[in-house]
This record gives sequence, structure tokens and C-alpha cells, in this order.
Amino acid sequence: MTTSARTPDGTSPATDRRGLRVLDLEECLSRIGHAVLGRVAFLCDGDVVVLPVNHLVDGTTVAFRTTWGSKLQLAADGSRVAFEIDAHDPELSTGWSVLVQGVAHLVDDAETSQRLDERAAEPWVRLDTPSYWVDIRPDSISGREIIAPAPG
Amino acid sequence: MTTSARTPDGTSPATDRRGLRVLDLEECLSRIGHAVLGRVAFLCDGDVVVLPVNHLVDGTTVAFRTTWGSKLQLAADGSRVAFEIDAHDPELSTGWSVLVQGVAHLVDDAETSQRLDERAAEPWVRLDTPSYWVDIRPDSISGREIIAPAPG
Repeated sequence: MTTSARTPDGTSPATDRRGLRVLDLEECLSRIGHAVLGRVAFLCDGDVVVLPVNHLVDGTTVAFRTTWGSKLQLAADGSRVAFEIDAHDPELSTGWSVLVQGVAHLVDDAETSQRLDERAAEPWVRLDTPSYWVDIRPDSISGREIIAPAPG
Repeated sequence: MTTSARTPDGTSPATDRRGLRVLDLEECLSRIGHAVLGRVAFLCDGDVVVLPVNHLVDGTTVAFRTTWGSKLQLAADGSRVAFEIDAHDPELSTGWSVLVQGVAHLVDDAETSQRLDERAAEPWVRLDTPSYWVDIRPDSISGREIIAPAPG
């Protein structure tokens, strides 16, 4: 996996070309782990779709539930997807975002599903149809933060 | 333009098959207009990218600024993109989201650019390179809301 938070010599640059602070991999994963809601973006019949999901971090994998026959389940066949979280403060005009890019798979291993079930909070949307875990195995994780101007 | 908030007979169903409240077009546009930050999702070299943007609603068009040579500018050549906003309340386990799908174009009309400039707030990220307005002309706008369970 590559992260754009790293330069070739392994150091973390303070800012990118737009003056945004670059979040390193550890910080990206920590923020994903603390967020309760993220967004999954994927292609469906040539259209880009973005849907909010309640997610979990499982190592460097991001996992979430979907229902059988949903657009998301159909995309979880080895397709490339993106997962995004962000937060912002309108008063200070600051914010940050983390983007995970990788391949989505349905979790077909009972042991992994059970482990994820045990860690998951109660889903916000009650699903009447069977649901399945999807994991995103990332090949890129990157994060940026708007630095607030110094006071005064 | 179609909105999935409408059934073929023109009525607005209260909920979808997952029990989520369907937001009608007027409510979707109002929520986009009041949000200060949205997310644009698009394809770049076969990868799905999601980036936060400060946006404006101009009629039924969503517009935002990007810099020359950026991934977003390259996608604004008539490509299909998605724009998403959402909000959630972790205490109540409720939330809503609105998804706009359509085609992105660079705004090359000086009059439109000036009108958007006049309406735009100060950008959160100061851009040292020339920036351009992109608009998304939607062919689908849809919104869903998790209905909080009745108290007691």
C-alpha cells in the first residue's frame, strides 16, 4: 500500500502544494476509527454513487454492512471503490478529510463476519433483508487538513 | 431530470423499502443550499476520488471552484460525477443524505463566473494558482433520512 502522506525518503511533509497539512497514515487510520459515519463511492451502471455507511476499521481494512441485492453489494465484487470521512468547522473555515481507495469484497468468511458483528454498534438503519459485511482493502490512504490562520 | 423522490404517478412516498424517509426535490435543494461543505466524487484514471468542496446552488446546478490542472478540473470535461451532502446525530443514531448525479463542465462563460464569484463566500483554501468554476448539471437528485424511533 502507498500513502500520499509519505515522500520517497519516508518523511512526512508538513503541507502539500495547496498549503494543506498532510495527515500521516497513523493519523488517517485514527480518524477513520473514531468517525461514526463515512461515505462509500462506487460506480453503478456508469454512474458514480455516494452512500453514507456506519463503518469499522479492522486493521487497515474498512468494513461496513450492506443488504443483499443493493447497489453496494453489487459493487463489492472486486470493484475499485473509495471511502471518505471529513469534518469541518464553519466558524473557523477549517476542516479535514481522509480518502481511502481500494478494492471492495463481500466478506464470505464466517469467522471474520462474526468478529465484525461483535465489534459493531447497533446499525442505524434496521435491515429487514439479509445483510453482509463488505471490506475495502486499501491501496491508498491519504488525508489533508486546512490549517487555520494564526490569530491576530 | 428525474428524482427518485417521485413515484411514476407523481406522488411522494413517505418511505423507501429500507424504511428511510424520502426527501422531495424541494427539500433536497434546500438542504444543499444551506450546507457549507459537500463532496464531489468522480473517476480519475480508473480510481474513484472523493473530495470536499465549498459549493453553491445556482438554480438546480451545483457549482464549486477548482484549480487549473487539478484532478477535479480534468474531470470537468463532461464526465459523470456525483455530489453528496449529509448530516448525522450520533446521540439519536439519525441522519440524512442528498445525492446529486450529473455531468460536470468547466464554466467558460464570464457572466456566469462573475455571478458565482459575487455569491461565493471567501474560499477556505487560498488558491495560488488560477481557479475556475465547475458546474454539475444534475439528471438525478435524491435524498433519504433515517426516521428516529418514537420515544417511549
